[in-house]
Amino acid sequence: MSNCKPKAFIFDVFGSLVDWRTGVANYCEPFFAEKGIDTDPLEFADLWRNQYQPSMSRIRSGNRGYLPLDTLHRENLDIVLNDLRLEDAFNSDERDHLNRAWEHLPSWPDVPSGINGIRQHALVAPCSNASVALMVRLARYADLNWDTVLGAETAKDYKPKKEVYLASCASLGLKPGEVMMVAAHNEDLYAAKKAGLLTGFFPRPTEHGEGQKTDLSASEKWDFVGRDTHDLVTFLE
Amino acid sequence: MSNCKPKAFIFDVFGSLVDWRTGVANYCEPFFAEKGIDTDPLEFADLWRNQYQPSMSRIRSGNRGYLPLDTLHRENLDIVLNDLRLEDAFNSDERDHLNRAWEHLPSWPDVPSGINGIRQHALVAPCSNASVALMVRLARYADLNWDTVLGAETAKDYKPKKEVYLASCASLGLKPGEVMMVAAHNEDLYAAKKAGLLTGFFPRPTEHGEGQKTDLSASEKWDFVGRDTHDLVTFLE
Repeated sequence: MSNCKPKAFIFDVFGSLVDWRTGVANYCEPFFAEKGIDTDPLEFADLWRNQYQPSMSRIRSGNRGYLPLDTLHRENLDIVLNDLRLEDAFNSDERDHLNRAWEHLPSWPDVPSGINGIRQHALVAPCSNASVALMVRLARYADLNWDTVLGAETAKDYKPKKEVYLASCASLGLKPGEVMMVAAHNEDLYAAKKAGLLTGFFPRPTEHGEGQKTDLSASEKWDFVGRDTHDLVTFLE
Repeated sequence: MSNCKPKAFIFDVFGSLVDWRTGVANYCEPFFAEKGIDTDPLEFADLWRNQYQPSMSRIRSGNRGYLPLDTLHRENLDIVLNDLRLEDAFNSDERDHLNRAWEHLPSWPDVPSGINGIRQHALVAPCSNASVALMVRLARYADLNWDTVLGAETAKDYKPKKEVYLASCASLGLKPGEVMMVAAHNEDLYAAKKAGLLTGFFPRPTEHGEGQKTDLSASEKWDFVGRDTHDLVTFLE
């Protein structure tokens, strides 16, 4: 990347910039306590997240039209509550309320100042599978200052489909080679690279809790590899 | 609006938040000087803007597929240069450069702090006919801090088609009645109101220069009427 400074950085968000696992658990915990449910909130967050990829795969394959992630999260919540035999614990309104967990996720400590630092050099947007509605609320909670929200809703499809990366670049009026996709997930970057984007990686070794085994390091020579968003700012300076 | 505080404010931008006429003129002036062109830059801005509505009308009517405003501005520039017998003055690259005028428009003095003040109360986004690519760059230049960019590109159509207002509300996960459209143009608000949105007006009496005759005051009892964005902040407090 030595001689081509990106004109924009687009970011994966869940896991890469915000701690979804702790966030979902902390948000759900008081609801569980109120109902006398003894399910471990962290385990509940994992179970809910386990439904994430399967729910998007039917849309990616074209077997279902695009639906925003909020809707998929809500459907997945029903599945998880059923699996846990908690189908009678929460009514529909309460489930809608629980579903807002995904708008209340803390950013990793380096992120707010890191994003602001990167914005001194280039345009910055999320390229997440979150809907615009979810992302604008999450951005307020997690203190993420974007130029605009891009990602799944821009393409009406889900990553890692190449259309999502390409539509996000097009929306910024930039060629894929002028944009860096940044993520803590190697798979996301393989797809972005294949679509012609530059790639940046930093690990989030506790995204899945202690003992995480995946994405602890870069699995390829990405254009940028560092420890966090602050390293990316340093790299740009 | 007494008992229903909007959850989001969406704004018209050209004329309502930024001074396109002075901005385009100031941007073009040195290019004209360099080429020894004696066309008045303010008159040139007016002529360019005069092509704005006709260029969108073919898309609104369905006679042409959606194209971003950047493309329409560029086509309109060709028309105006031809009309002025300046077809040989600028080559294609120079015209592309001139076209960036629309990314370099100053905000009216109240706007940056006014938008930030409104963001203390609700989500805030543009609902403009600008593309995302144009708006993110204009926002940087004019110091407009948005939650995200909405508008024509969200709906792949142009205001005042109702789809643009409705798609912008849907993208925020809100009902039209929860969102206020704010503009210095009564026509924009008529369309927004018809689509079910709340409406807010302040005049920009010099948008078209001294002697402006249109949109000097509210032509209907909109939900909010004030002098500028600061009055809207006060209204919310």
